[in-house]
Amino acid sequence: MDINTVNALPYDDFVNIFGNVVEKCPIILAAVWSRRPFVSLPALEAAITEFIDGLPESGKEGILRCHPDLAGRDLHRGTLTRESREEQARAGLDALESAEASRMARLNEEYKERFGFPFVICARMNDKESILRQLSERCQNERVVERARGIEEVKKICRLRLQSLVLPDAPKKVMTH
Amino acid sequence: MDINTVNALPYDDFVNIFGNVVEKCPIILAAVWSRRPFVSLPALEAAITEFIDGLPESGKEGILRCHPDLAGRDLHRGTLTRESREEQARAGLDALESAEASRMARLNEEYKERFGFPFVICARMNDKESILRQLSERCQNERVVERARGIEEVKKICRLRLQSLVLPDAPKKVMTH
Repeated sequence: MDINTVNALPYDDFVNIFGNVVEKCPIILAAVWSRRPFVSLPALEAAITEFIDGLPESGKEGILRCHPDLAGRDLHRGTLTRESREEQARAGLDALESAEASRMARLNEEYKERFGFPFVICARMNDKESILRQLSERCQNERVVERARGIEEVKKICRLRLQSLVLPDAPKKVMTH
Repeated sequence: MDINTVNALPYDDFVNIFGNVVEKCPIILAAVWSRRPFVSLPALEAAITEFIDGLPESGKEGILRCHPDLAGRDLHRGTLTRESREEQARAGLDALESAEASRMARLNEEYKERFGFPFVICARMNDKESILRQLSERCQNERVVERARGIEEVKKICRLRLQSLVLPDAPKKVMTH
């Protein structure tokens, strides 16, 4: 759909369609609906970013804690959201070798124990080798650094999910004389 | 479980168990986990209330928009959350007579058209007659009044959902000399 169609949606359809562009946080899109009409897809994205940035630090941690582990319990139980399932599969996380799976599980636990929220990364912009390497590296960061880094990844995930739902704006016509 | 058990939960179990005490807003409980340990159930409830009150007005509207209509589409399609299904059934909303159902649907649409969010009321503290009466009356309010009123109802729903999950604190022993 294009941005005009988005702007015409009643809130309940808007939340049904866009509610999971930030994983399991439909409240964010439900809040942002108040800001319509959006002049463009980037304007909708900016409204989401602004809402997230305005949350207290505990709220940002709350967003991170709504994310599943990569190659974790929800993937094995089939309880991932549709979006997460597709993203994790595309990165090869549903077909890890035994040694990779063990390493991922161990590092996920180490990360969560250290920070109190899960490792969040935009899986569609990475493959399993790159994810494992960054998980290992990011375990060494300070908590405040990781909280900000996780939120940056949330925004990348959000952007790609939005782009899969809304057509880009038509290019502006160049005026010639 | 008692409050000590609650305080010992890792965030993922905490969010799984308490994530829906505010309907479809697990981010709120995921945020509030940062504030543990809680000295009592009222302290947990107060932390939730404080987080909600700290949200911008659009965020409060977002919470309301995460709520289903009473006796609406989600009830008929079987897509209510477990908590909402039980609460709506207890108030008799799953067994409305035809005329009541039509009136409820009409008033719900009128309310949503006027305010841009759904009518929220603590169904467990009302029956279907009382709900229909208040829905009709509250359609006449100002938007800012209804936003605040809806959030007060969200807090009542939250309190009852919490009380169904956590044991009340043991009464303090009276010291006698």
